[in-house]
Amino acid sequence: MCLLILLELSALILIVAGWNTGPRKEIYYEPEEVKAAIVTCGGLSPGLNDVIRQIVFTLETYGVKNIVGIPFGYRGFFEKGLKEMPLSRDLVENINLSGGSFLGVSRGGAKTSEIVDSIQARRIDMLFVIGGNGSHAGANAIHEECRKRKLKVSVVAVPKTIDNDILFMDKTFGFDTAVEEAQRAINSAYIEARSAYHGIGLVKLMGRSSGFIAMHASLSSGQIDVCLIPEVSFTLDGEHGVLQHLEHLLNTKGFCVICVAEGAGQDLLQKSNATDASGNVILSDFGVHMQQKIKKHFKDIGVPADLKYIDPTYMVRACRANASDAILCTVLGQNAVHEAFAGFSGITSGVCNTHYVYLPIPEVITAPKHVNPNSRMWHRCLTSTGQPDFH
Amino acid sequence: MCLLILLELSALILIVAGWNTGPRKEIYYEPEEVKAAIVTCGGLSPGLNDVIRQIVFTLETYGVKNIVGIPFGYRGFFEKGLKEMPLSRDLVENINLSGGSFLGVSRGGAKTSEIVDSIQARRIDMLFVIGGNGSHAGANAIHEECRKRKLKVSVVAVPKTIDNDILFMDKTFGFDTAVEEAQRAINSAYIEARSAYHGIGLVKLMGRSSGFIAMHASLSSGQIDVCLIPEVSFTLDGEHGVLQHLEHLLNTKGFCVICVAEGAGQDLLQKSNATDASGNVILSDFGVHMQQKIKKHFKDIGVPADLKYIDPTYMVRACRANASDAILCTVLGQNAVHEAFAGFSGITSGVCNTHYVYLPIPEVITAPKHVNPNSRMWHRCLTSTGQPDFH
Amino acid sequence: MCLLILLELSALILIVAGWNTGPRKEIYYEPEEVKAAIVTCGGLSPGLNDVIRQIVFTLETYGVKNIVGIPFGYRGFFEKGLKEMPLSRDLVENINLSGGSFLGVSRGGAKTSEIVDSIQARRIDMLFVIGGNGSHAGANAIHEECRKRKLKVSVVAVPKTIDNDILFMDKTFGFDTAVEEAQRAINSAYIEARSAYHGIGLVKLMGRSSGFIAMHASLSSGQIDVCLIPEVSFTLDGEHGVLQHLEHLLNTKGFCVICVAEGAGQDLLQKSNATDASGNVILSDFGVHMQQKIKKHFKDIGVPADLKYIDPTYMVRACRANASDAILCTVLGQNAVHEAFAGFSGITSGVCNTHYVYLPIPEVITAPKHVNPNSRMWHRCLTSTGQPDFH
Amino acid sequence: MCLLILLELSALILIVAGWNTGPRKEIYYEPEEVKAAIVTCGGLSPGLNDVIRQIVFTLETYGVKNIVGIPFGYRGFFEKGLKEMPLSRDLVENINLSGGSFLGVSRGGAKTSEIVDSIQARRIDMLFVIGGNGSHAGANAIHEECRKRKLKVSVVAVPKTIDNDILFMDKTFGFDTAVEEAQRAINSAYIEARSAYHGIGLVKLMGRSSGFIAMHASLSSGQIDVCLIPEVSFTLDGEHGVLQHLEHLLNTKGFCVICVAEGAGQDLLQKSNATDASGNVILSDFGVHMQQKIKKHFKDIGVPADLKYIDPTYMVRACRANASDAILCTVLGQNAVHEAFAGFSGITSGVCNTHYVYLPIPEVITAPKHVNPNSRMWHRCLTSTGQPDFH
Repeated sequence: MCLLILLELSALILIVAGWNTGPRKEIYYEPEEVKAAIVTCGGLSPGLNDVIRQIVFTLETYGVKNIVGIPFGYRGFFEKGLKEMPLSRDLVENINLSGGSFLGVSRGGAKTSEIVDSIQARRIDMLFVIGGNGSHAGANAIHEECRKRKLKVSVVAVPKTIDNDILFMDKTFGFDTAVEEAQRAINSAYIEARSAYHGIGLVKLMGRSSGFIAMHASLSSGQIDVCLIPEVSFTLDGEHGVLQHLEHLLNTKGFCVICVAEGAGQDLLQKSNATDASGNVILSDFGVHMQQKIKKHFKDIGVPADLKYIDPTYMVRACRANASDAILCTVLGQNAVHEAFAGFSGITSGVCNTHYVYLPIPEVITAPKHVNPNSRMWHRCLTSTGQPDFH
Repeated sequence: MCLLILLELSALILIVAGWNTGPRKEIYYEPEEVKAAIVTCGGLSPGLNDVIRQIVFTLETYGVKNIVGIPFGYRGFFEKGLKEMPLSRDLVENINLSGGSFLGVSRGGAKTSEIVDSIQARRIDMLFVIGGNGSHAGANAIHEECRKRKLKVSVVAVPKTIDNDILFMDKTFGFDTAVEEAQRAINSAYIEARSAYHGIGLVKLMGRSSGFIAMHASLSSGQIDVCLIPEVSFTLDGEHGVLQHLEHLLNTKGFCVICVAEGAGQDLLQKSNATDASGNVILSDFGVHMQQKIKKHFKDIGVPADLKYIDPTYMVRACRANASDAILCTVLGQNAVHEAFAGFSGITSGVCNTHYVYLPIPEVITAPKHVNPNSRMWHRCLTSTGQPDFH
Repeated sequence: MCLLILLELSALILIVAGWNTGPRKEIYYEPEEVKAAIVTCGGLSPGLNDVIRQIVFTLETYGVKNIVGIPFGYRGFFEKGLKEMPLSRDLVENINLSGGSFLGVSRGGAKTSEIVDSIQARRIDMLFVIGGNGSHAGANAIHEECRKRKLKVSVVAVPKTIDNDILFMDKTFGFDTAVEEAQRAINSAYIEARSAYHGIGLVKLMGRSSGFIAMHASLSSGQIDVCLIPEVSFTLDGEHGVLQHLEHLLNTKGFCVICVAEGAGQDLLQKSNATDASGNVILSDFGVHMQQKIKKHFKDIGVPADLKYIDPTYMVRACRANASDAILCTVLGQNAVHEAFAGFSGITSGVCNTHYVYLPIPEVITAPKHVNPNSRMWHRCLTSTGQPDFH
Repeated sequence: MCLLILLELSALILIVAGWNTGPRKEIYYEPEEVKAAIVTCGGLSPGLNDVIRQIVFTLETYGVKNIVGIPFGYRGFFEKGLKEMPLSRDLVENINLSGGSFLGVSRGGAKTSEIVDSIQARRIDMLFVIGGNGSHAGANAIHEECRKRKLKVSVVAVPKTIDNDILFMDKTFGFDTAVEEAQRAINSAYIEARSAYHGIGLVKLMGRSSGFIAMHASLSSGQIDVCLIPEVSFTLDGEHGVLQHLEHLLNTKGFCVICVAEGAGQDLLQKSNATDASGNVILSDFGVHMQQKIKKHFKDIGVPADLKYIDPTYMVRACRANASDAILCTVLGQNAVHEAFAGFSGITSGVCNTHYVYLPIPEVITAPKHVNPNSRMWHRCLTSTGQPDFH
């Protein structure tokens, strides 16, 4: 059974070999008999509805009649009162025109055994999981459990992380839209800062462990003076600290704009051991911390400073996908269905070096992808902001 | 001197008499000899740059050569290191394409005597003050002081309050844009709430003492379940409280969206006596209070609730004016110049019952305009949200 | 029967008397027994879906269970194969988020007798007609025919004209959105003109017999050098003609931008006697005529000129309503239902001098509302463009 | 002289060798003595101002004091009355916030000898040419002429083609923005078509010889039924023609939306031999041809069809760059300066397989890049539209 064999292969081999990510001549399932289920997990990312829609369209093109949505993430498999939703082209035709998830999302709930019981009870043959690292781990556990129970179920994932922090992948859906929408917040911070006497604009963007959104948004705006990301450590205080640099900027330009990733500067914050329902460690809020530090600093030194803090997170996440992400979602959705029909399981989809590929889940979730502080792109960002080394 | 006489007349008489708000045959100043100054005070409101631009254009049309901008509000009159900026059509041609104030704004600083000293020293003949209630009071005090010193200075104001809380006026510039931009935040809250299991979206909008933005934004979105404004008292707890209604909405609809004006529910918060630099009492932040109350309530009763809080204030304020506000600003800017050339002082401009009028400043700043809880518009809002009486 | 009496009263009396446009204590129909139908006629205007949605919501609030949509305008009453669509809150909940008409529109088809036959056969008690002048005439004819047949049917109209050309009314829905969206076209024309050597940007906007959109869009953009509307005649050729002025602008500014209403300059075009399905005379296309004249002129005189012509009509019409129009539509939709339940027929809704009113249809359709060339607003537009008298 | 050697190397070798596109340790010019000039040629593409701005910023970072803009394309070198514009960070700080070209563009005018005379007279050391294929050929001719005259001038180009039709390059700046903005036109066409009885929406997009914009815009919208591009031939008439398919769509869906590239179907049109000022053959307008054919067809067969034609070309071109293009422009602008300082000439910049590279101009302009009709992406587009083979 090809399901079993393939998962031993490593990601790189798949890429090099150029495995076909499109439709195959021979398919592993009889479309008319297939029951396919879709579930969306974790937080929102622009494009969720595009992926759902495209999976439904492609399944119908194969001839699948029985397609359902599992509501509110893995929770929908076992929570009483939540019913699966029959899906069809008519129903999902225009869902891509609004943001969010048509099926609903939720965090956590990866009780593998209960979920596989539910899959068995519902007679699901294909499960499409759209989610982040945690949900991919969940998908892989479901896949393993299905193999153990000798169920012929294809578990195929599509990576959803607005942070763009998936290994091997050029970009994940929602990221491009997030960078675009972040411009609105950055430009507002710039306008507020520039219009105020000693104005300081502070924008917090998404990025728990990876600063891609903050870096790209800073670069594309051209309006950021300081960009702080999780991958690059910095000091706030002292002669070479960020606060000293802000003073310098107020004295020279008269205003400044700062962009911080939510996960930046965690070493400067009190550690919390709490985790959210997805098992992610709850980070201390660096944006708010930064806000307080700046206010205190300028009060302490007696220099007027007019700080405006903007956290556009939910307004960015809830957007509909822009055109570039819409294409990415379309291809990922189509490919997920092709993979399932080719008999794969425990596998995920993405774009790597401009090529669409699929990869075994475990390879992909070993670690988050990070901004390389020695990369040309980070250096371009530094050139653009003109910020010094904060040490 | 017509300056002196007119200010005894009451606002209503001016309106009824249909005083000409356009250019006059006889003008009170020799344009070539006039030095005109523009100052913008308080917080940002969409359209500031449109008004500045139009004042400059109209002054140039009259033949004025000497036009300056006072930087960063009244502070620009006396703060060392701040220099007046020469203004011309070329310089301001495209400033309306971005938000904020080209001249800079700041709060407070209404030291009348110092400002009039500065006006004298600079030989300013016309002062255009774009600002809110506090700045209007300041403008009037400057006007009175100029009269006392027998200076021939026209002090003409243009009301700037995004909250739309100026007496007698149909609307103030920036309000329409604010309602428009608030839709983005409300729709994001709706998407987040609807996509989450027991999702609650909470949006805080501007409105210190008047709930016009919250009311209009709720009505136009059609996505709000509860709208709370300063003019209408409510209880959070108890059988008829807001929290109980939220429970009801989660049980029936599965999610809900709430819109609160920043100045709502002040009786439920601890009073602060602090004031900001403009002399406004610093309000306790009802949005954050509401956020905490909701979280605590649902935790206490053991019902899951996924709350997302959005405060789009700065992203709304920093927008450029929409088309409707751009027209309003154009007319207000043109009229302000016509009034100054007609020899008026201590006067402000606005639109009243679809007619453009000017009014003596003291009449206008006696009190803020409020939403009438018995008005048809508030009832329409209640019909749209379906919210009960929270008592 | 109040239906009969009221229609004798004139519009002005209704306004002065301040007739209640909200819900009444006594209603003329038993909600549970009512069958209500909605039909949308003519071309698209932003806000159609908002009105449909609000009519459905308000009908349901009254307790009406039987609500249907007539597809594709009056044609839906008699064309074979077109079926009425049952409507409910669930179905129309989010239709306001996209432009167009959920029910479909079409022109013409006002065969009164057949329509009333169909109304009788379908047992419709309330008919809501959303449409322009022609459709209002149709609605009135239906109302008269129902009276003749002694049918108890309330025919209530809501004026839909993006051109804002309805007598007595401050503005019609869609107009504000159209002016807003037109900014995009004007700004593009400005950018193209300014970036080109001797660039000329030409934008054609809606406005068959009334130039409100062109005038307001020109005023709010502040980027227009020449605005031509149907109400103000002009010559193209000759010493004082438009073309000569364009030459002047190219020589002095280096570029220029022109905004024309589609119905401008009809006296300069060959008359056509053709009419469209709604009975409107098909106008010759002044935008295209102007484009050809400009090209020819500059070719003839041997001056380089780089003309870019933009006709954004469909991109403007197909927009969803902006916030201001959404509120207007909400109120108009609610009021239409209140009127029907109060027993009125042959009546239409609007906002007049900032008050919401209803008016007998015949009063409203006697003539289109025009821009007054002596009005302050037109003079403000001339001040803004700086254009001379073209005679 | 490294200038001479490098140009013999082929593009592919450069890519494989991974030549450094960033700043070098050794630079070929003394920054303080450099005079650098920037010129923008051809039509508008979103991002022109971003590239200009970034070239100025990067030159200043190197220490260059003497930076000028040549107005209105190559024409600015020799046309009387056009003066070079001194450029600085202050001046270009915010030009990226609006579309168009701050320097002005024009077509044609590549009189190499005159231009090089002008370069000599102006003592220009570095010339940055932002333009399309024709302008690249011009840049190369200028480079060759400079070599012939033994002038030490670096001529560095940045490819500007909204069509994305440059060989070897992943994408050119402006393309991503164009696809995004095209969504607005497509959605309008969809809304118009869907709201009309037998509605047909027809959108013409850019793409003279390459259909990338039409293909990507169709894919990302998910609303297109037929996509026609220059690379894929088709018949309009006959049993398997496009018109027959439209009939089928009206009968089954009730409406349809078509997207055509401007250069599609040239074999169906009368050939013109005219060329524009850039030497491009003037294509017959396929959009208008298609519009007429559709109208005639449905009139001939007596089936009602309501066609709406949208040509958003200028509204797309005049947009400011979106975030993704802004980053691309930033990098291309920086790299162009690095290349010039490294002593290269006759070279152009781009992104190839996600890597930023530079390439000799002649390699790049041998032919336009085309959509491969056998590519996965075109097949995805066909899957999305559901269109058959039109033969």
